[in-house]
Amino acid sequence: MPERLIVVGGVAAGMSAAAKARRTNKQLDIIVYEQSGFVSYGSCGFPYFIKGEIPQINDVIVRTPAQFAAQGITAHVKHQVLAIDSAAQTVVVRNLDTGHEFTDQWDRMILTTGGASARPALAGLQLPGIFTLRTVEDAVAIRQWIDEHRPERGVIVGGGYIGLELAEALAAHHMHITLLEATGQVLPTLDAEMAAHIQAELTAQGVDVRLDCAVEAFAGSERVREVLAGDQHIAADIVIVSVGVKPSVGLARAAGIALGPTGAVAVDDHQRTNITGIWAAGDVAEAQHLVMGRPAYVPLGSTANKQGKVAGANAAGGDERFGGIVGTSVVKVFDLHAAGTGLSELRARAEGYNAASVVATANSRAHYMPGHQPIHVKLVFEQDTHKLLGGQIVGREGVSKRIDTLAAALHAGWTTEQLAELDLSYAPPFAPVWDPILVAANLASR
Amino acid sequence: MPERLIVVGGVAAGMSAAAKARRTNKQLDIIVYEQSGFVSYGSCGFPYFIKGEIPQINDVIVRTPAQFAAQGITAHVKHQVLAIDSAAQTVVVRNLDTGHEFTDQWDRMILTTGGASARPALAGLQLPGIFTLRTVEDAVAIRQWIDEHRPERGVIVGGGYIGLELAEALAAHHMHITLLEATGQVLPTLDAEMAAHIQAELTAQGVDVRLDCAVEAFAGSERVREVLAGDQHIAADIVIVSVGVKPSVGLARAAGIALGPTGAVAVDDHQRTNITGIWAAGDVAEAQHLVMGRPAYVPLGSTANKQGKVAGANAAGGDERFGGIVGTSVVKVFDLHAAGTGLSELRARAEGYNAASVVATANSRAHYMPGHQPIHVKLVFEQDTHKLLGGQIVGREGVSKRIDTLAAALHAGWTTEQLAELDLSYAPPFAPVWDPILVAANLASR
Repeated sequence: MPERLIVVGGVAAGMSAAAKARRTNKQLDIIVYEQSGFVSYGSCGFPYFIKGEIPQINDVIVRTPAQFAAQGITAHVKHQVLAIDSAAQTVVVRNLDTGHEFTDQWDRMILTTGGASARPALAGLQLPGIFTLRTVEDAVAIRQWIDEHRPERGVIVGGGYIGLELAEALAAHHMHITLLEATGQVLPTLDAEMAAHIQAELTAQGVDVRLDCAVEAFAGSERVREVLAGDQHIAADIVIVSVGVKPSVGLARAAGIALGPTGAVAVDDHQRTNITGIWAAGDVAEAQHLVMGRPAYVPLGSTANKQGKVAGANAAGGDERFGGIVGTSVVKVFDLHAAGTGLSELRARAEGYNAASVVATANSRAHYMPGHQPIHVKLVFEQDTHKLLGGQIVGREGVSKRIDTLAAALHAGWTTEQLAELDLSYAPPFAPVWDPILVAANLASR
Repeated sequence: MPERLIVVGGVAAGMSAAAKARRTNKQLDIIVYEQSGFVSYGSCGFPYFIKGEIPQINDVIVRTPAQFAAQGITAHVKHQVLAIDSAAQTVVVRNLDTGHEFTDQWDRMILTTGGASARPALAGLQLPGIFTLRTVEDAVAIRQWIDEHRPERGVIVGGGYIGLELAEALAAHHMHITLLEATGQVLPTLDAEMAAHIQAELTAQGVDVRLDCAVEAFAGSERVREVLAGDQHIAADIVIVSVGVKPSVGLARAAGIALGPTGAVAVDDHQRTNITGIWAAGDVAEAQHLVMGRPAYVPLGSTANKQGKVAGANAAGGDERFGGIVGTSVVKVFDLHAAGTGLSELRARAEGYNAASVVATANSRAHYMPGHQPIHVKLVFEQDTHKLLGGQIVGREGVSKRIDTLAAALHAGWTTEQLAELDLSYAPPFAPVWDPILVAANLASR
């Protein structure tokens, strides 16, 4: 009888793991249990579905259970795993359509239960018209609310990546948008002076940005009508609460799978948990942060896919290693692009580094080329050694893949002097003769 | 009396050197002799001036002699250095306006005489209407010819970077363009299957691309009328010959400055020539190629500026080092962007490497995002070690700065497995969850 691999959770990490396990080992039985109605979807596309840029929710679904079946992977949707017994190597599963519960046996398991939207304990959070965004069902519900109620006033609670993308998405439906952020800036992975560019863009696009504004309650009778924050009463026809993601570790904890210092599942570089035969990957798990040299919790689709592939290979008898993260991310906020990698200056100081920084502003293309845009590059580095600790780039073009050069520099452990030596591409339509990264690196190296 | 630094040649490397020397050393007398009528210009912008995208030739000029004077740098245009005496530490200079010749004395010298367009020994090359493109004067003459003669048929001889950019530039003037290339493909820094995408784009844009077509002569009486290649007679109202750049080493050779194996001036990592007190930089000089571990001749503005800065610092008493090149370049060909870094597969084999390669085609953005475009990534690597030797990317967006990640990987000396570990930026408008570079790196690592 073939060995049986059960994958708990079938989104990015889970289906990446299942697919890689199948490619690695043709004999293995591979079963995926996913509690939502969909597998293998690109949740990062949801804001663009809500915006209307992606016409159908099905467009963000990479593969269906039927397509996985053709690969020899059995994916059950609407099946919730209720418990894992790691000694008996079984799971208890409920079919959410029928209510039927059953026990399944596994020889190897990959835990990819992902994360869940943080839901702050605020009065009125259950009111219709208030949403979080995490699943296909959430995205469809938000879009349906917009289509049915034609809201005129949208409130976004939280100025992180998803909140910023949703501001753009809701604004496309001709709403007046208010964005409420409890701290003093949006996008906390960037330093304040870089985030200021984003705040300026939001304001220029008509978004009412309120910083240092902590929501206390939601009001309304049949549906949400107001968001309350101190003495502010903000009228709202739709509210999206986007205040972070928490790893869904309930099953893991109950099964005795160890969590790490971040509260997510602890894994080694082979995605192994503390329990032999159980791997974990994606938003439920930590990842080794190469700059800090310790685990961090940075739930992103790119990392989930990579970790899933490694977990799948290893659970199927292979030997792959996840190389860790440097915390690279990018977001489009209306016409502005903002990216970061490594540590912000604030974070670096909080981590105990003697951090210095420079900000260089240069052109995205040669200065004489029409369409060139200012591009702001911040480098954070150790004062004494000039070792790069992080970078941030904000601009209207040429941001997202320029940050990758800084990510590579962090992987390599380079100093700003080494960064300044890079032979980067140059042609007038794409860069000035001194690429903005080199301008910043030269400035840092003086 | 202050020491005197003479810079011979005042374009990219020369003025970068002069400016850096001034910042490094306030005492030094700094004199620049430039034989053309302009200093400090971005010659890479010429195709876009000819195209009409840049309205005025002055737009590509970074700084004028007057602006340099304000920094304490004396820049003489239309002054040709006729001879260098490295024992007596003098130069003989001719004022091209007056014909006056004089001798000047130097304590330190930076040689930045640049390169010149290769001019093949072909009958009729001197006919009016046939141009090469290297100087401001060339660019203005081409543009003037177009404005005065309204040519209907343009012929580009040579399918390198400049030839490709000029095909686009001339086509903007509603000419029928024929591009003649003596070898079997355009853009010899790329491998044939990648160059094929460019050839397809040229053809789709109406350019008549003729490969394996060696020009033998030009015909016409008062001006060029035909280009002759074998039995082909190609009608032409304007011809641009763009068959490469040769380092302008005449002065150097006569002065006893050693040339390297490439025929350009040999320099060490401080841009020193074999003669104490003389540095060289830019298109007249070689550069250490980090992949091959030996000098190469890759004349590009980005390298010229970097080398100039190093030469300027060192000639002024500083201690800077040029880190070498990996041969990164990018070109826009109508709507297609093509980039390369390191060695092509053909070149790698010719250099004796046991080279293997993969080509991956992926999307420039998430597959569900409108506007996504196919992007082709080729990786060339050592068969046994998987050490990366080079990369090529072709597509309609996201090419130019993606190549920089591969350039960084070459600087770091990574394998394809290490490349596959990179934490690259991901958001649906900018990349798929597996960046095309990672797709290629995974494929190479199997």
